[in-house]
Amino acid sequence: MPNDLVAALDIGGTKIAGALVDSGGRLLARTQRPTPARESAERLGAAVDGVLGELAATPHWYRVGAVGIGSAGPVDAKAGTVSPVNIPAWRDHPLVADVRERVGDLPVSLIGDGPAIAAAEHWQGAAKGRTDALCMVVSTGVGGGLVLGGSLHSGPTGNAGHIGHISVDMDGDPCPCGSRGCVETIASGTNIARRAREAGWRPGPGQDATAAGVAAAARAGDPPARAAFERAARALAAGIAATAALVELEIAVVGGGVARSGDVLFDPLRAELKRYATLPYLHGLILAPAATGADAGLIGAAAAGWQLLGLQVA
Amino acid sequence: MPNDLVAALDIGGTKIAGALVDSGGRLLARTQRPTPARESAERLGAAVDGVLGELAATPHWYRVGAVGIGSAGPVDAKAGTVSPVNIPAWRDHPLVADVRERVGDLPVSLIGDGPAIAAAEHWQGAAKGRTDALCMVVSTGVGGGLVLGGSLHSGPTGNAGHIGHISVDMDGDPCPCGSRGCVETIASGTNIARRAREAGWRPGPGQDATAAGVAAAARAGDPPARAAFERAARALAAGIAATAALVELEIAVVGGGVARSGDVLFDPLRAELKRYATLPYLHGLILAPAATGADAGLIGAAAAGWQLLGLQVA
Repeated sequence: MPNDLVAALDIGGTKIAGALVDSGGRLLARTQRPTPARESAERLGAAVDGVLGELAATPHWYRVGAVGIGSAGPVDAKAGTVSPVNIPAWRDHPLVADVRERVGDLPVSLIGDGPAIAAAEHWQGAAKGRTDALCMVVSTGVGGGLVLGGSLHSGPTGNAGHIGHISVDMDGDPCPCGSRGCVETIASGTNIARRAREAGWRPGPGQDATAAGVAAAARAGDPPARAAFERAARALAAGIAATAALVELEIAVVGGGVARSGDVLFDPLRAELKRYATLPYLHGLILAPAATGADAGLIGAAAAGWQLLGLQVA
Repeated sequence: MPNDLVAALDIGGTKIAGALVDSGGRLLARTQRPTPARESAERLGAAVDGVLGELAATPHWYRVGAVGIGSAGPVDAKAGTVSPVNIPAWRDHPLVADVRERVGDLPVSLIGDGPAIAAAEHWQGAAKGRTDALCMVVSTGVGGGLVLGGSLHSGPTGNAGHIGHISVDMDGDPCPCGSRGCVETIASGTNIARRAREAGWRPGPGQDATAAGVAAAARAGDPPARAAFERAARALAAGIAATAALVELEIAVVGGGVARSGDVLFDPLRAELKRYATLPYLHGLILAPAATGADAGLIGAAAAGWQLLGLQVA
């Protein structure tokens, strides 16, 4: 077995994707199917089997030396289990054992989807060549991952970097996680849209009622829409500055649907970062949009798989 | 040269201490003098020279293989400079070059006092044997350091783990650092005393007007005193939970003058941690009082010095 490919699995609330990935990060085969997120563990298992089966049926399979899994969290890398918030039938589900059963004696790694994005951005994206990075996804939720000292820091359980659930407003709104004032309660797309609506913003006819619609309105100068983005930017800035104070960062990379709003988010985010990242050792902190695309989850999962083979790619 | 000792320097706003420390963490010689904190760089340099000179005059000096410096921050380990907030004459002061000039060609390491405390607690204190730890000092200020993956994580500039200046109340009171709602603005001894006084607490005749006095009053059931400690506990809990969510922690160690209040701090801190550390991978987080004593700064500085000699002690 030449061990010159890694099989990557990206398990999310909407799709389960798989690919064979070489040491240069190229995808040789790619497949996906919808996640039967509200269905039974059996149906979910069958979907994973289907994706792995397609990969195993390619003529390249014999070259695969390891499997890297990135999954919606929380995950438990020690136990090899996943409990994705949006996939209720999987609670402490032994995904690593499932996959091992399917792939024989290949080594299997498991990390959360936040660390996977960080690995992808470090390998091929905006954090390439950086030693210390926070990479975030700001979308319907807020997640993230860390690169420290040149390597992915996913933590013992594979969940590290979860900036969406740090409290930047300790007396603030309750968060579904049980805490209060989490970054996600202010900066997620869902909460940007909620806050804009509460402040009086209404989507125009045919206009999007989500954060993308709020972004369009903010770009046109609508005050409640702008205020919702400014508030989100402040929460993100406080969270990024906290992370930088705690671990020292060279760069913070922000991706996801809300980040695609561009300047509507990045302009206030840059201004707020100046207000919160005040310690001298934070002054050089770079802010950048994410550079990896829709396959970031697969690429990051593959990066972790490559580490099992002794190749430090991210 | 047997290289079986490290010279440690602990530079603080009130004292400059030095010691020779063996690989078991024992102090063979120990000396200190008051920091001429409000005086010139020359006077400060003379104090450092005095401490080093005393160590060099011991019969053990020939055994010293490296020098470890822990200094009040911010420091810049890359540049070898220090800019301690409470020592105005030192701004980007080349302390490492100063020391190198004094000690010849010995290797010299520099870390902040927060990381030094974390190194000491990991080597000999409450974080001994732990893989991932946050160690804090809650005193007139709030500082900290991190142990990640079994090693001290002081960051590229030597300041990592600075939990005192992460914002847990992003719309909160301005902090002298320029940010808002930093943990230190709520949880430092100075701010606990300020908040208790603002809420109506007054020290009794002969009673202490500092956080120690507030602690005594809180222990006796005084409502404003209790409220000030509860508020501090909440800020510390939000900060500890944020750190644990970001890097994954096994243990949070809290020391310093305010922590010596005991249950008055630790009881509400434990309760608040349950409210903020809600993610499944934070449930096992241990909270413990610091176990190293007054020489923690020296021991931690020595630990970093030992790393220069290839011995991973903390």
